[in-house]
Amino acid sequence: MDTDTILEGLLKENNSKIVMVVMDGLGDIRSPEFDNKTPLEYANTPNLDALAKESVCGRHIPVMPGITPGSGPGHLGIFGYNPLEVVIGRGVLEAVGLGIELKHGDVAARANFATLDGDGIICDRRAGRISTEKNKELCGILSRIKEIDGVKVTVEPGKGHRFVVVLRGDNLNPAVDDTDPQHEGHAPLQAKPQKEEAVFTAGIINKFVERARVLLQEQQPANGMLLRGISSRPKIPGLKERFKLEAAAIASYPMYRGIADLLGMTLLTAPDTIEGLFKAYIEFHNKYDFFFIHVKGTDQAGEDGEFLTKVDVIEKVDRALPILYEKRPNVLAITGDHSSPCPMYSHSWHPVPVLLNSQFSGTDDAVRFTENQCNIGGLGFFESRHLMTVLLANALRLDKYGA
Amino acid sequence: MDTDTILEGLLKENNSKIVMVVMDGLGDIRSPEFDNKTPLEYANTPNLDALAKESVCGRHIPVMPGITPGSGPGHLGIFGYNPLEVVIGRGVLEAVGLGIELKHGDVAARANFATLDGDGIICDRRAGRISTEKNKELCGILSRIKEIDGVKVTVEPGKGHRFVVVLRGDNLNPAVDDTDPQHEGHAPLQAKPQKEEAVFTAGIINKFVERARVLLQEQQPANGMLLRGISSRPKIPGLKERFKLEAAAIASYPMYRGIADLLGMTLLTAPDTIEGLFKAYIEFHNKYDFFFIHVKGTDQAGEDGEFLTKVDVIEKVDRALPILYEKRPNVLAITGDHSSPCPMYSHSWHPVPVLLNSQFSGTDDAVRFTENQCNIGGLGFFESRHLMTVLLANALRLDKYGA
Repeated sequence: MDTDTILEGLLKENNSKIVMVVMDGLGDIRSPEFDNKTPLEYANTPNLDALAKESVCGRHIPVMPGITPGSGPGHLGIFGYNPLEVVIGRGVLEAVGLGIELKHGDVAARANFATLDGDGIICDRRAGRISTEKNKELCGILSRIKEIDGVKVTVEPGKGHRFVVVLRGDNLNPAVDDTDPQHEGHAPLQAKPQKEEAVFTAGIINKFVERARVLLQEQQPANGMLLRGISSRPKIPGLKERFKLEAAAIASYPMYRGIADLLGMTLLTAPDTIEGLFKAYIEFHNKYDFFFIHVKGTDQAGEDGEFLTKVDVIEKVDRALPILYEKRPNVLAITGDHSSPCPMYSHSWHPVPVLLNSQFSGTDDAVRFTENQCNIGGLGFFESRHLMTVLLANALRLDKYGA
Repeated sequence: MDTDTILEGLLKENNSKIVMVVMDGLGDIRSPEFDNKTPLEYANTPNLDALAKESVCGRHIPVMPGITPGSGPGHLGIFGYNPLEVVIGRGVLEAVGLGIELKHGDVAARANFATLDGDGIICDRRAGRISTEKNKELCGILSRIKEIDGVKVTVEPGKGHRFVVVLRGDNLNPAVDDTDPQHEGHAPLQAKPQKEEAVFTAGIINKFVERARVLLQEQQPANGMLLRGISSRPKIPGLKERFKLEAAAIASYPMYRGIADLLGMTLLTAPDTIEGLFKAYIEFHNKYDFFFIHVKGTDQAGEDGEFLTKVDVIEKVDRALPILYEKRPNVLAITGDHSSPCPMYSHSWHPVPVLLNSQFSGTDDAVRFTENQCNIGGLGFFESRHLMTVLLANALRLDKYGA
């Protein structure tokens, strides 16, 4: 029996407020050059320490032991979805993240501007990482392609060399391979359908790439493009249907706003500072049951191997924490969506520390919120997809199972 | 692959004795007014402390993280059954608990006496919690209804306002909704069949309720009844079939005797004291492989929020513990079926502490048997349904899996 089936009949509604602060890529491993500590261990975090003493801690495992998740699976897990069952295409993620309202049946692709040589061979997969300004200009040019064989085409610039292409029309199917060969020194691939039903869509994509090539031929360095993650909006029941939660997302980065949107969360305006994120919760406290607050800096620092930057973001969260207490949520969880250890310069498989505070969370012997204190916590080690159930339990939103 | 399939071919028999002491609702969270300790932390338990040092500890999760189990799912878990797959109806639990021998095909309902006003509206779902004596008298009156349309009717009093109705006959089907609307201010519901095959049974139940109403009309306050958990004995392979264990239950409360009976355990006479429960094990030591010893007091105290009463029950178990050592079982487990934290006055989802002692259990760094010492135990956090397998392993009753 899966989580949905169990929760059916157990879920009840009340006025409780649940806040999940997601410090992206929070988990880490110890760095010998910094007193052999992790960023959480190294940081000065009086507020988190005090909270840890009144809370229950543990570590969650995003997909399964040893599996490193991308941002999609990482977030799906902490929102109660099985990331092995629910898959969101990268094109879809990018599109909704840019504020494009995707309808079911639309096909979205993540695109890079690239540099092609005279023979059409890729010499730079990222077109010298052109500026976002230049990107906007080029997408303006590509937007002259409004329709192909009755299919509406939308081109939307992202950051740097990235943009999104969305197709809308009848009979589209996203089962089309990437045109990105993933290596320089090759020509971009033709869009290849993975099955009969996608032949039409692959044809549209190839026509789009051809027309774009003509439009871009005078451009340098961005005279070509590569498409990846061709996908359609998945049919995922949102947090309202699954958990009876009116959910809001306070996240500023497109990717996370996109995920939140796919899960039916309302996207609130998210300021750039951590204080601002927490104040947005205070402002909207009365209007939603569940708040997803996304802090990006920890992941960026981890991926850049910037230990002290990660420490700084953690300390900023610590200093801002009392803002949340102005309208103390009934259930407060502080965690990450995955680990991004500084020594690895990347996402990783390491279990993610989590702190959970509620009137009935109980406490344990963890005296700080760190990876290794979480190892002795009362939540133990558990799959991320169970976190939402535990939050609902702490919010007294679940009835007893069986007599 | 499920547990059954794995155990098939691995199970072997020997003369080992396994004792599982189940302190119902044992797990707890810390209470600020009692030195910020849990009852296990607060209690003076020299014998359990000494045993913890020679044992391996851990915490088990009855259903899945965040799910609060009833007594049925809680016990099914620790006896090695998946509580999401094996479901025992409440009517069946109550009936077998009262010593009624249920045959396959019988239909049992849990019943409450209730008070109805002049318009037939429920004004008290528990009929003022009448005495067990009065209950017996009223069930005596209802027992005049011996048969309806060829179906034999049995009415058996429980405690307070509760009783059980059992139907025996051909073509019965338990797929019938409760007649209890769960709220006062409504009339009792008609018994409604959930499918065609249950129309006959629903009819019998409605006729029973009608006749009962006539018999009870002069009674105050118990002039009505509400039926719940209409169900039939499930087909569950017992501990003998599943684990090759001759099992005995030393439990005094109906519910737990009922569960033990459904799982094929022999029900031994259970005295009221904890010493008595442990002495019963000594008496029957030679006759069974597995002993389920049920201590109810911890759960009652938890549900009543009586911290010191829970401490007292724990200390009683501690003092009585050496009785078990007179015929030391090869494997001794001390645990609960779920948590019932005093601050919550109810069952909860919190993982349950478990201590396991055998010649080969190993030891860990836990120096007391408490929730938080169990967090650092060598068993880790695991689903309750795996506990039996670990007991069998410690009893050397399982062969190696694979070459």
